[in-house]
Amino acid sequence: MTKLRVGVIGGGQLARMMVVPAIELGLEIKVFAEAENSSAAIATTMVGDYTNIDTISEFAKTVDVITFDHEHVPLEVLRELEAKGVSVQPPSRALAFAQNKLDMRKRLSELGLPMPVWAEIRTEQELQEFLTANGGACILKTPIGGYDGKGVRVVRTIQDASDWLTAEGLARVGGSLLAEEKVDFVREVAQLSARRPNGEFRAWPLVQTTQKDGVCAEVICPAPNASNETIAHAAQIAKDVAEGIGVTGVLAVEMFETRDGRLVINELAMRPHNSGHFSIEGSVTSQFEQHLRAVLNLPLGSTEPLGAVAVMVNLLGVDDQNDFVRGFESVLADHPQAKVHTYGKGARKGRKMGHVTVVSNDAEFALAESRATAAALLDA
Amino acid sequence: MTKLRVGVIGGGQLARMMVVPAIELGLEIKVFAEAENSSAAIATTMVGDYTNIDTISEFAKTVDVITFDHEHVPLEVLRELEAKGVSVQPPSRALAFAQNKLDMRKRLSELGLPMPVWAEIRTEQELQEFLTANGGACILKTPIGGYDGKGVRVVRTIQDASDWLTAEGLARVGGSLLAEEKVDFVREVAQLSARRPNGEFRAWPLVQTTQKDGVCAEVICPAPNASNETIAHAAQIAKDVAEGIGVTGVLAVEMFETRDGRLVINELAMRPHNSGHFSIEGSVTSQFEQHLRAVLNLPLGSTEPLGAVAVMVNLLGVDDQNDFVRGFESVLADHPQAKVHTYGKGARKGRKMGHVTVVSNDAEFALAESRATAAALLDA
Repeated sequence: MTKLRVGVIGGGQLARMMVVPAIELGLEIKVFAEAENSSAAIATTMVGDYTNIDTISEFAKTVDVITFDHEHVPLEVLRELEAKGVSVQPPSRALAFAQNKLDMRKRLSELGLPMPVWAEIRTEQELQEFLTANGGACILKTPIGGYDGKGVRVVRTIQDASDWLTAEGLARVGGSLLAEEKVDFVREVAQLSARRPNGEFRAWPLVQTTQKDGVCAEVICPAPNASNETIAHAAQIAKDVAEGIGVTGVLAVEMFETRDGRLVINELAMRPHNSGHFSIEGSVTSQFEQHLRAVLNLPLGSTEPLGAVAVMVNLLGVDDQNDFVRGFESVLADHPQAKVHTYGKGARKGRKMGHVTVVSNDAEFALAESRATAAALLDA
Repeated sequence: MTKLRVGVIGGGQLARMMVVPAIELGLEIKVFAEAENSSAAIATTMVGDYTNIDTISEFAKTVDVITFDHEHVPLEVLRELEAKGVSVQPPSRALAFAQNKLDMRKRLSELGLPMPVWAEIRTEQELQEFLTANGGACILKTPIGGYDGKGVRVVRTIQDASDWLTAEGLARVGGSLLAEEKVDFVREVAQLSARRPNGEFRAWPLVQTTQKDGVCAEVICPAPNASNETIAHAAQIAKDVAEGIGVTGVLAVEMFETRDGRLVINELAMRPHNSGHFSIEGSVTSQFEQHLRAVLNLPLGSTEPLGAVAVMVNLLGVDDQNDFVRGFESVLADHPQAKVHTYGKGARKGRKMGHVTVVSNDAEFALAESRATAAALLDA
């Protein structure tokens, strides 16, 4: 059988979850992992250093398209692959914006998309001016290398950022920092979407996300009480971003909903994203299936919901002991409607170890049951 | 992470589809396949002859429980594994009835379960007597070795079976044949269920199945217009069979619904079954997840439906060329609601190559869309 072959760089849980639709659709999936026994070990065909162009090039010869579990592959490696004729999806010109938050803000400004007030910060004076102009507080971010709350700080005085503003500190993050207005938001939402190289675009319903210590904790699909205008606006923003930046595959646009009902873009992820895990059971087409379809330039599937409400609760490591196997049996017994996902990772405090999803036509049940299932696993 | 480890003997599409819930739940799955590049190659850890007790024993040492993709492992091999303390699920005492249709009929008769009139046939005279007593026609089956319509014949004269009734022919199938009344049925139905070693039992809704040349062609869940009595009766039959025979894991009971509204048992399958593929998208818990839970003696998941109707249509090989990759792209474009599954098998006429499922609250749409999607793939 002539199979379409997808190569995934990175062996994390996102690669792991891409294996499922590959099996179902009959696609071949090969993972380039950093280590044996990664979360995606079942599909790993090569283990190595993803910054090494030679090994990545060898890997690329075994597949029809290269895509990603994470956004850390150096741009020069991606550009060299593209120069050799490898199909890289999303392409380096899009990933450049995922890897540099300052470049992302500049590009989204050019596109006229709604964002927090922001500025590039090179000196203590620039930071002080930004603080003064924006109510005495801001979110300061390192443009490169941050994820899951890392490289992000709430700053009220220049002392809060003095370590980042040394010549050494600045050199580590590309020469400057990104300051953003501390948005007065009522909640956070995320717009999941996918786009093919040929331009076909599909969006899922807008979801509400709850962060805890900078990490996604809970997602409700659809976002409760969102107006039709907000829903349509969010989907349009995602389309504008995807087209304006040239994203292919899944794109997650994380946004703040402000007290006065505006949406402003917080972060972008150009890959399947924690805010989209609900779609595995909650949508006709999961984000993982859609990503594989999109990067192979295959037609996209329906993003219609399969129940009135889907709620996803993350399982974050509580310590280096609880890998959720201990409480597994009693939790399955007590929660037969819950879909429990674990990622086969060693236990570590704060680590994304798994998630729980409940889909139901009863919103209260979905919320209570997903939370209770996760709590029972965390307490075991 | 301490993972629960399931070993599956056989590398067909059923083993392949068990890999999905293993990834999702975080179980370890290992497949013992007959060949490299089987349908379940992604999880294959050993390739060999499943009739060889030594290699199977080696494989068994690497897992916590042994289960099956097919029912062909010799009973003496299973008994030897059990004697060594290996957990074999379903156990040999249950599989004995799956491997011998005469023994199955005898046991189900003891249990008082509804069946066609049947008899053990050793001679032409016995066959003639059965034909005379049952309207001049019967279904004649070889007790061992038959599947998907093989080893099954409609017989009207002893000449129709003379090759099977020679001393040589009889010796090949265990010494006798099974004659069954040709049931005057209005339709075929199947009751999917699962049972744990500790006795927990769950049934899915009764489904309607359509066979073509002895092979499953289409499944509708729930069976249209089934009375509440029929639904409850079917589930009770499955429970009686599972308990009476000691089945663990998934059990499919294929039945005829007669013109006067009775159910009579046709065949049993003690593993995930073609009549249960609808459950991948159509149920909270798929038959493949439930099978893994059951054989590991983990609590069973909910079998509630996720839409009003699920329709599954098989993709049977049309020739040795069409592996459904040719028409894949246009079919995905035209049928965004359809879930297309292909099994990674080489094309061969009549071979089970994949299936299509559509879940919808609109029964007519589910039926039309699943059929149209399958037809488009078959015609490509």
